[in-house]
Amino acid sequence: MESDAATSLRAHDTAVWYLDDLTIGQVFSSRAFKLDAASIKSFAAAFDPQPFHLDDEAAEATIFNGLAASGWHTAAITMRLLVECAGKLAGGLIGAGAEIAWPAPARPGDTLDLRAEVVAIDPSRSKPDRGIVTLRSETLNQNGQAVQRMTAKLLVFRRPAATP
Amino acid sequence: MESDAATSLRAHDTAVWYLDDLTIGQVFSSRAFKLDAASIKSFAAAFDPQPFHLDDEAAEATIFNGLAASGWHTAAITMRLLVECAGKLAGGLIGAGAEIAWPAPARPGDTLDLRAEVVAIDPSRSKPDRGIVTLRSETLNQNGQAVQRMTAKLLVFRRPAATP
Repeated sequence: MESDAATSLRAHDTAVWYLDDLTIGQVFSSRAFKLDAASIKSFAAAFDPQPFHLDDEAAEATIFNGLAASGWHTAAITMRLLVECAGKLAGGLIGAGAEIAWPAPARPGDTLDLRAEVVAIDPSRSKPDRGIVTLRSETLNQNGQAVQRMTAKLLVFRRPAATP
Repeated sequence: MESDAATSLRAHDTAVWYLDDLTIGQVFSSRAFKLDAASIKSFAAAFDPQPFHLDDEAAEATIFNGLAASGWHTAAITMRLLVECAGKLAGGLIGAGAEIAWPAPARPGDTLDLRAEVVAIDPSRSKPDRGIVTLRSETLNQNGQAVQRMTAKLLVFRRPAATP
């Protein structure tokens, strides 16, 4: 069954991906994303106004030893990359929830990329048109160091019964 | 011990809050935050470009039945409110990780506020100058409905030994 589904996914690569098209172990890989100091500071000014995210000099005296992106900025960038490489999921990328950790801060000049793997596929028992996909992801910097690890639960729709 | 710490917190309300000043059950409450459609769309354009976050009309045909904020936007707003009401924690609000869920979407026109409670305080065994505070929070809309629930682990420093 899994190899059939994988074949189907390749065959319909430009179409919507339904729950039925996904396989455990399937990987989504993003493009590289360049992070700069200006975007770190502007995100922080709006959502996480703390010295280590706002000001190079003030950040030197903190536990971060220099400017660092807000973890929520790293999470938002991760979402952007995920939408770009997995946005064809039926119904869109709809998160029910997530576990998230930031083992190291993202820094100005970092080049980030995302690798996300399908680790579980659970059709809903009560709603036959949908299911939950568990996606485990790492957002890595240019040294292969994880700046974010996340396990997310996504709502994905099943292929409509009328579709062959 | 806990009532001593609570007294100390009140007495030094304008100063930095060390791990030693916190008590289990302590609550941080935020101001009200008004969410508008323009900010929902601009956050989405940058970080979560999907129809239900970007366009009123397209959003009607989705599972959200209308424009909804990205969960990461809700998370970022929550962080903003937390910095405002709990930003005096020693060293700043430094998240090691979090579990997050979005039971309902935040909508244009919603007024959000945050209630966060200290549920655990764990001094580090290996690093005597710090500990981990577990904060459980709810971000509520004007109807008291939770648009986000989060349990976050924060790194907080202890009062330096030289300070009385």
